[in-house]
Amino acid sequence: MTHPENDKEYKGLVVNEGVENLPQVNPYATFHRRKQVLTAREYFEGIREGDRTRLSQAVTLVESNLPEDQKIAQQVIEMCLPYAGNSIRLGITGVPGAGKSTFIEALGTELCKADKKLAVLAIDPSSERSKGSILGDKTRMNELSVEKNAFIRPSPSAGSLGGVARKTRETIVLCEAAGFDTIIVETVGVGQSETAAHSMVDFFLLLQVTGTGDELQGIKRGIMEMSDGIAINKCDGNNVERAQAAKVSFKNALALFPPTQSGWKPYALACSAVEKTGIQEVWDMVEEYIRFARENGYLEYRRAQQAKYWVYETINAALLDGFYHDPVIEKLLPQMEEKVLNNQISSFIAAKELLDTYGK
Amino acid sequence: MTHPENDKEYKGLVVNEGVENLPQVNPYATFHRRKQVLTAREYFEGIREGDRTRLSQAVTLVESNLPEDQKIAQQVIEMCLPYAGNSIRLGITGVPGAGKSTFIEALGTELCKADKKLAVLAIDPSSERSKGSILGDKTRMNELSVEKNAFIRPSPSAGSLGGVARKTRETIVLCEAAGFDTIIVETVGVGQSETAAHSMVDFFLLLQVTGTGDELQGIKRGIMEMSDGIAINKCDGNNVERAQAAKVSFKNALALFPPTQSGWKPYALACSAVEKTGIQEVWDMVEEYIRFARENGYLEYRRAQQAKYWVYETINAALLDGFYHDPVIEKLLPQMEEKVLNNQISSFIAAKELLDTYGK
Repeated sequence: MTHPENDKEYKGLVVNEGVENLPQVNPYATFHRRKQVLTAREYFEGIREGDRTRLSQAVTLVESNLPEDQKIAQQVIEMCLPYAGNSIRLGITGVPGAGKSTFIEALGTELCKADKKLAVLAIDPSSERSKGSILGDKTRMNELSVEKNAFIRPSPSAGSLGGVARKTRETIVLCEAAGFDTIIVETVGVGQSETAAHSMVDFFLLLQVTGTGDELQGIKRGIMEMSDGIAINKCDGNNVERAQAAKVSFKNALALFPPTQSGWKPYALACSAVEKTGIQEVWDMVEEYIRFARENGYLEYRRAQQAKYWVYETINAALLDGFYHDPVIEKLLPQMEEKVLNNQISSFIAAKELLDTYGK
Repeated sequence: MTHPENDKEYKGLVVNEGVENLPQVNPYATFHRRKQVLTAREYFEGIREGDRTRLSQAVTLVESNLPEDQKIAQQVIEMCLPYAGNSIRLGITGVPGAGKSTFIEALGTELCKADKKLAVLAIDPSSERSKGSILGDKTRMNELSVEKNAFIRPSPSAGSLGGVARKTRETIVLCEAAGFDTIIVETVGVGQSETAAHSMVDFFLLLQVTGTGDELQGIKRGIMEMSDGIAINKCDGNNVERAQAAKVSFKNALALFPPTQSGWKPYALACSAVEKTGIQEVWDMVEEYIRFARENGYLEYRRAQQAKYWVYETINAALLDGFYHDPVIEKLLPQMEEKVLNNQISSFIAAKELLDTYGK
């Protein structure tokens, strides 16, 4: 075990100074200070050694909003970064009822059998409010949750989308450093969560169900054009014909879209998560894409773009938060909106007055 | 003619104080101070009386970047606002080569014959750079430009997209106050310009041409899902069959999209701007939509949302501009990006360091 103080690289980052002088205690006995007892390096070494408990604890730190937890979390992430990146990152979206959990359970089990190490994460900014968090209930994935090669983590509990997404993105780093070679990020097609998920994965899969009306209600426009592939789930029982027809329809629709930046042509497949048919084909599509994008350099390019995206996204969110949470602005904004809606002043004058007020 | 000083409502907004005491001169003779000679109220009254010259001059003020011009422009806009809003605002996008100019000429001529008063505006942030500005050359619309009911204005010359879009949006207000009941905003499917156009119109039309490859290259993914309707142009000569087939393909594709927020179901039509066939049908689609959206309240809702959108958009752009044009940030940002790309620090740490630097 290396103490950060003995490690030049991490000088100046030591936050647990003095803790080492306390009498040694069982960390599990000192519940209220449990997290403080370990140093960043201890978490890091545990993660690298494949210690699941350490990984889970570190993810808890990443998810914590306490400044002292965040300080250690950032050190752990920084130590893990050089070991991150060696995974296939797959995003999966779809409306509630598309069968995401069952699909991930079926796909995940196959991947584990093929000796992949799989981490399943989620982005669901509504998780706290609705209490019906995706992945919140691990027991929905009975089979997968007992696989020794699988690590399932529910969505960080709510906050701003930016906060939730950031935590998930940082958790990917920890999981990759822990040796997971396949990361699945699940999201619901709500709000901007799929944009966030899209911005941290290599392949974005839209899980679709047949039907033209209600089944599509929940999904936002724009997601189809964002996806690298579509899987029509529930191609089973007396639904096979409809699912196959849907596959063809989506195939034709995708062909009308302008080409993707990578040159990849997204396509649609049918599968049944319940009957476990067509699942391997979906994974083959993902791997086919990865080979394609690795070869033409797009995979590397996309990851670099994503890393930059999160720099800008974080900065932008902080700047806008500062403005919109300013008490004076919070009071003035509704009045200005009202004037704009009543055609008393233009949108631009309203904006200028608000900015001038903020500048003072 | 009312002088602003005599009008309680505009007290405090008087910027031409003293000008009235100068000897009266022919405004067209004093070129270097031409714009200063008129008061905001004079522009406003000219606009309301349908004086094209005054309208053009006021638009020039709106487009000017000089603070003294902007001051008057904003007063004119404020005076015009209560008289704005009584028009159908139609956005038209499509790749270069889709025949936008010819289409607008054909549609515009029909509208003028039906006694509509039509203003044709444009958003093209590249106009200065490329010199190939859309609408830059009015002579491309020979027939329309001589119609007494048509007012054609090229894109404001370049600057940021936000600046160009703002000027176009403000020009809409002036045109509506001048009695134009139909506004067309043309844009190219480049960058974010179609998002800007989409955010100021009632109906967003995608002008498409047949073909599966090169013709679609220029159009950005996402535009199709943004459009309220598609017109397949160049349905003429030996292209009729292909255009009709494309119409069916797009119809099928649109049916797969999730429903729009308004409940409107976008559809595709074929037309020929050159042969002037199918043009009326496109306009019928626009009017059908307007009736539909007016009835269910969506039209009003969309306009209110747009007005708010431009408040937020203007504020956000100003806040971000302030940050990214800060000299210290401009120097530090590339270094931070490099560290992120080399996996030395996380995107979030980089963002935090930049924000901390800016805060100092």
